[in-house]
Amino acid sequence: MTSSRRSAPTPPPSGAAGVPRRAVATVCLSGTLEDKLAAAAAAGFDGIELFENDLVVAPWSPAEVRARCADLGLAIELYQPFRDFEAVPADLLRANLDRAERKFDVLAELGADTLLVCSSVAPAALDDDALAVDQLGLLADRAAARGIRIAYEALAWGRHVSTWDHAWRIVARADHPALGLCLDSFHVLSREVDPAGIAGITPGKIFFLQLADAPRLRMDVLQWSRHHRLFPGQGAFDLAGFVGLVLSAGYAGPLSLEVFNDVFRQSDPARTAVDAMRSLVHLEDGLHPTDRPEDRRQRRLPVAPGLTGHSFTEFAVDGRSGPVLQDVLRGLGFTHTGQHRSKPVQLWEQGGCRVVLNSAVTRPQASGTAAISAFALTTTDPHRAVDRAGALHAPVLPRRRGPGEAELAAVAAPDGTSVFFAEPDDGWRADFLPTGNEVGAGAGLVATDHLGLTQPFDHFDEAGLFYRSVLGLRQLGTEEYAAPFGLMRSRGFTDPGRAVRLALTVAVLRRGEWAPSVADPQHVAFGTDDIFGTAAALDRLGTGTLRISDNYYADLVARFGLAEETVRRLRRYGILYDRDPRGGELLHLYTPVYGGRIFFEVLHRRGGYDGFGDANAPVRMAAHRYRRLAEV
Amino acid sequence: MTSSRRSAPTPPPSGAAGVPRRAVATVCLSGTLEDKLAAAAAAGFDGIELFENDLVVAPWSPAEVRARCADLGLAIELYQPFRDFEAVPADLLRANLDRAERKFDVLAELGADTLLVCSSVAPAALDDDALAVDQLGLLADRAAARGIRIAYEALAWGRHVSTWDHAWRIVARADHPALGLCLDSFHVLSREVDPAGIAGITPGKIFFLQLADAPRLRMDVLQWSRHHRLFPGQGAFDLAGFVGLVLSAGYAGPLSLEVFNDVFRQSDPARTAVDAMRSLVHLEDGLHPTDRPEDRRQRRLPVAPGLTGHSFTEFAVDGRSGPVLQDVLRGLGFTHTGQHRSKPVQLWEQGGCRVVLNSAVTRPQASGTAAISAFALTTTDPHRAVDRAGALHAPVLPRRRGPGEAELAAVAAPDGTSVFFAEPDDGWRADFLPTGNEVGAGAGLVATDHLGLTQPFDHFDEAGLFYRSVLGLRQLGTEEYAAPFGLMRSRGFTDPGRAVRLALTVAVLRRGEWAPSVADPQHVAFGTDDIFGTAAALDRLGTGTLRISDNYYADLVARFGLAEETVRRLRRYGILYDRDPRGGELLHLYTPVYGGRIFFEVLHRRGGYDGFGDANAPVRMAAHRYRRLAEV
Repeated sequence: MTSSRRSAPTPPPSGAAGVPRRAVATVCLSGTLEDKLAAAAAAGFDGIELFENDLVVAPWSPAEVRARCADLGLAIELYQPFRDFEAVPADLLRANLDRAERKFDVLAELGADTLLVCSSVAPAALDDDALAVDQLGLLADRAAARGIRIAYEALAWGRHVSTWDHAWRIVARADHPALGLCLDSFHVLSREVDPAGIAGITPGKIFFLQLADAPRLRMDVLQWSRHHRLFPGQGAFDLAGFVGLVLSAGYAGPLSLEVFNDVFRQSDPARTAVDAMRSLVHLEDGLHPTDRPEDRRQRRLPVAPGLTGHSFTEFAVDGRSGPVLQDVLRGLGFTHTGQHRSKPVQLWEQGGCRVVLNSAVTRPQASGTAAISAFALTTTDPHRAVDRAGALHAPVLPRRRGPGEAELAAVAAPDGTSVFFAEPDDGWRADFLPTGNEVGAGAGLVATDHLGLTQPFDHFDEAGLFYRSVLGLRQLGTEEYAAPFGLMRSRGFTDPGRAVRLALTVAVLRRGEWAPSVADPQHVAFGTDDIFGTAAALDRLGTGTLRISDNYYADLVARFGLAEETVRRLRRYGILYDRDPRGGELLHLYTPVYGGRIFFEVLHRRGGYDGFGDANAPVRMAAHRYRRLAEV
Repeated sequence: MTSSRRSAPTPPPSGAAGVPRRAVATVCLSGTLEDKLAAAAAAGFDGIELFENDLVVAPWSPAEVRARCADLGLAIELYQPFRDFEAVPADLLRANLDRAERKFDVLAELGADTLLVCSSVAPAALDDDALAVDQLGLLADRAAARGIRIAYEALAWGRHVSTWDHAWRIVARADHPALGLCLDSFHVLSREVDPAGIAGITPGKIFFLQLADAPRLRMDVLQWSRHHRLFPGQGAFDLAGFVGLVLSAGYAGPLSLEVFNDVFRQSDPARTAVDAMRSLVHLEDGLHPTDRPEDRRQRRLPVAPGLTGHSFTEFAVDGRSGPVLQDVLRGLGFTHTGQHRSKPVQLWEQGGCRVVLNSAVTRPQASGTAAISAFALTTTDPHRAVDRAGALHAPVLPRRRGPGEAELAAVAAPDGTSVFFAEPDDGWRADFLPTGNEVGAGAGLVATDHLGLTQPFDHFDEAGLFYRSVLGLRQLGTEEYAAPFGLMRSRGFTDPGRAVRLALTVAVLRRGEWAPSVADPQHVAFGTDDIFGTAAALDRLGTGTLRISDNYYADLVARFGLAEETVRRLRRYGILYDRDPRGGELLHLYTPVYGGRIFFEVLHRRGGYDGFGDANAPVRMAAHRYRRLAEV
């Protein structure tokens, strides 16, 4: 077999000033091709990978797709996939080359110049590298004649070629200017093979780079890849390290996202595309400076805000839910300390805990209910925080400012909650006129420990990346537990100093009609240094905390070997208990649910307990359910 | 270490006349313990396995749970699980025995006499069978003293004990009357170890039998077990063979379902419990006669109906959707041949295809829409079919009968569709007065090939078992594909003679707000022996069939190497093409969607093609979407 070498096709032009182009595969996004292209363009992508199925089902001819992309400013960076080509018997090779020519026709009409060829999974493929080298060389000849490049990729489940280094050996041996590698972070990082050698790949031979993150799952790698990929920063892979290796090898093509995810496939593509863009911006910012040519520094983000604590939590209330929450706060030992100068907004305080009840916020919530409409975090530089958020494509909210009122910079989180950035001096408090109410003894609540926010099903991973990238929070871990009405997933976030904590939860499967539970509950957890003292104070204040099943306490004795006397005290106040493997302890109690979806938690962390007591969440949820049944 | 042997506790009384008791684990069902017990009792179960978490979160004391179960006629057959007990160092053994005594207290108060102990997964557990034997013996001593039995189970992911035969060796060596095996079909059948030896287990030493089915999945066995179990008959395991082995070993305890399933955990427990009961009834019926003592024959089901074809499909229509469907049927070559004697119901016919348009059915559907309200299958013995359905807990519908009208026996399918059983002579046609309309040339449609029914998300596996058990259909296979608005799952069912076919589909994830597609589409597929002739006839009749993207045809050439001329003819009529590995071919075309969710398919099977053309479903779905966009 001979393969006449031709001159290499011209590589695609790089982006302006050497800044890497950003691309997204159409397979990442839900909808028709029209929906996908519109979403990618609106989110600011420079190009797309066109997934064959999206073209096959579309009513536009390839030339029309080309024109549409051009109108939208989108380059077609890659056409994919071309499957089961190499290392086959001669008759099949002829058929495969014919098949390739058909696809070259499509690329020509699309104006695309790179075709992804993934390693064969066909039973007909032979375990013969020399044959693969020859046949890929032939394919590259045909491609070069059409001005097309072949990017060869090792699928992690390829029949004979399943690792990047194997694919690279074949590409290197073929030594054809129109044949290079496609590296996909999933296929590389899901395998055991060390990626370090990627930095040594001959410059110019990496034709394409696909990026996907993923959680670490113990499952069939094909299923893992096809259903559970995530955008960079949403999973467990070291994408920055991987991209660094690829850039070290001189790669100057686009950074392109290729994420197969069951949820993204059925979610609003406009939001998914923004989430995708945010993941790339954040990833680029996290690259080691030496990985990035000088001219890429223009994309450096403002440094993440230094957070010093929760400043306040704002509830949107109305004429019915407002008085209910006032009673609850009073019962928790809060005092109504301030009244806003110009709006129907109350400030309630206890220790370092601050709650704002706002009757002027318009939220899409039912009459008589309450919701967390905003929370404020204290930071040294609110303006920088908002600049960073904006650069990360977070919706920056118009600043609310009245005569003599403090400015509060704010952005909108994926669930619609406003995130305010407050100055360390909490200057916003000057907006409130003192009520003169006498501050009572309180109940020993010290500060807001965390917020618990149920997330919309489609936007859980988006929310995690939002808080990690915009606020610079770290992810503490993901827990799954069986609640009375289905499985739940919970994920904690905090800053390095543990000044701010968020607990996001979501149903593992979107709930249907049978789920007579609280819809999307939200809660604020206040810290105490003396849970029994606080519990006794709440008792004196007449606050009815959530009653917990006696069976729970019987089980506590068996599980932790706690002293009977300790358990008796826990039971008396409905205090739940958890212990981490290092001996850290959590003691916490809850209120019932108010205003449709709001409850409060009081918690006492001991010995460095760093979690959120997820083990007790089903107990709390069942208790809330039984409480509601008792009310009916 | 010594272990004084005591006399065995009395085994639980077996059911009346030796009929095996039926039990369901509370973990199978969604809701609070109250919801679960009510559902289990209503579905006719004799007992439950009480899952510890359900008790721990419940407001009832164990004595109250006992009383509640007694009121409902439910025995508490098992309390579970007790984890990480055996083969530990001495200090941990003491703590574990203390822990066990706490649980014996709970069993005593519950009036339960069997505790499930599953093989340890704890890092502290030693790989020492002799130690496990000694310590389980000690536990059995303590249990026997309280009148309790220990059922030891090998978890498939146990640290040292992970197979049934290993657990049995330990139980046999311990030789303690209060220590026996718990066998769980999932843990046994998910492993490679041959279950045949189960038949040789010493009679009386299998203390408990848990049944679960599962699809064959390549994933971590723990995740597979915790999320994807199914009721018997819904998965791929040979449950009848397994139960046969256990019964051969003299097991006389309950048949108890223990199914961890993410969907069932969040679905209406009343329906899940009926589904569970149906699975047991069907499983028992499928046991080999020699496996079942003579007195169990009383539970034998009426034999499944012999089906000879689709008799008719009924659409519920109203004043707006009725005329639309009349036009469509006319365009497909149907003739309005009959008018019902007493109701606003029309009969339309062509070849062996019959469609009934019924304006008198009340269905919860929007004004102006249509839905498949019923379908009728021809069978030799409709009454036996309904008797079988009733014995399988299918809702038997009141028979519709007017003066001089034929009786049609019917049951309700899980999606609410009525399934009628028609006599082979189609006597029901006498209910229709001939219209005298001249029967036209038609379009060559021969018979109803299949119905395509989108299922409610929570009830897809329930529906599969319903059709398999009630109608005696076989499952043809499950396909998953990426549709424009998310992943879909499709499963086909047919009778041995291929007279009747059903294709059930469901979204892999419940759809949210972004899914601007047709809601729960339904379709009827009519067979032809000459797809091009039929297509030409439809053309002459002025029927606008669904236009398919030219890109699809370009891809067909590449994929199948079809002749250009063939592809030209396919494209002209919007005919889709598929080929199976044995060379069987499917040629099929579609109409647009009418009445909100209804469309029709015309298909031509060649060379024994046995599927439903799922590979083309995304093409059809995108075409429907683009068609609707064009209409707007």
